[in-house]
Amino acid sequence: MTIYGLLIFDRAEELDFVGPWEIFTASSMLRDGADTAVLIAETTDPVRCNKGMRVLPDHRLDDHPPLDVLLVPGGNGAREVQVHNPVVKDWIAKVAAEAAWATSVCTGAALLHASGVARGRRVATHFSYEDRLEAAGDVTVVRDARYVVDGNVVTSQGVSAGIDMALWLVGRLHGRDHARQVRRYVQYEPAPPYLADEPVA
Amino acid sequence: MTIYGLLIFDRAEELDFVGPWEIFTASSMLRDGADTAVLIAETTDPVRCNKGMRVLPDHRLDDHPPLDVLLVPGGNGAREVQVHNPVVKDWIAKVAAEAAWATSVCTGAALLHASGVARGRRVATHFSYEDRLEAAGDVTVVRDARYVVDGNVVTSQGVSAGIDMALWLVGRLHGRDHARQVRRYVQYEPAPPYLADEPVA
Repeated sequence: MTIYGLLIFDRAEELDFVGPWEIFTASSMLRDGADTAVLIAETTDPVRCNKGMRVLPDHRLDDHPPLDVLLVPGGNGAREVQVHNPVVKDWIAKVAAEAAWATSVCTGAALLHASGVARGRRVATHFSYEDRLEAAGDVTVVRDARYVVDGNVVTSQGVSAGIDMALWLVGRLHGRDHARQVRRYVQYEPAPPYLADEPVA
Repeated sequence: MTIYGLLIFDRAEELDFVGPWEIFTASSMLRDGADTAVLIAETTDPVRCNKGMRVLPDHRLDDHPPLDVLLVPGGNGAREVQVHNPVVKDWIAKVAAEAAWATSVCTGAALLHASGVARGRRVATHFSYEDRLEAAGDVTVVRDARYVVDGNVVTSQGVSAGIDMALWLVGRLHGRDHARQVRRYVQYEPAPPYLADEPVA
């Protein structure tokens, strides 16, 4: 049984946490509901995400089950607000020390770094934030990897990269064959359009 | 200015609508906020999605701005409940007739079909639902395409396929170069793990 805790806050980027949420919960479904995923925030008030979606947290920072996996999303709320919020930073440091894995998506890496969790680590972040994170010091930004595994800290590039990272993690936790089943269930066989420039029909 | 309306309901699959939501809203951000995306449901009560995430709708079926794009997600709520809900089916038929585009993700195609919108069309759906949708009649299920464009009806395969479809649509609406910028912003350069079977480090 794996318990996934996804931190959310105002102006968290929607796909940063919903991509991994879908992977973690699909993984649990395919394991007969063995696992649990919860959204955790400072209060149980609705969170207004970075692009305006309003989501209800399941738990408060001071009232949630012990986590095996912590996930920290990015968005303006991460890099502009929560990096200055001692309550959230202290919570991340405490939970990351107890959990098996501490993970981030996009500029969530800035919040992991501000909390001390990513200090001295190799990390990935959104391409537009790489210089700024590196300038913060005591961290090595890997610029050419979709996600970076350094010990039990796993960080990923911008927004959609959390899907790949989450699939890697469920494979690490529950086996490659299982991860392949999850990928099949969510039909993650990407076909981004406009990679070529073809005549319009 | 483009107005995107994403229908949600209990047991809608999370990534089915949040993937396109991220693409549509990122597109708007890169167009200086020119566009609007809203979540629409039967009531403004919180919706409990298929994997347990609770989301607040922005508008009711009878009180929303006129839509340019309608998006219908899948999930158990689509194929088991809403296909039997005349209020939602009538709304879909009415809105699809007025909107420029009617789209679906995953088993949302079943709901588009039950509403009459996908009748006589070529459509995509989740791989596990293809036989059942085809058996419903008066529809051609395309089994080997990530998303299918038939006139102004655009349907996509399971869960994650909505991201590709939404990128195609913003390119169709606002140009390929713009769609490429959106793809860059969300760093949609997929790298699914475990496509090969390599030695574990």
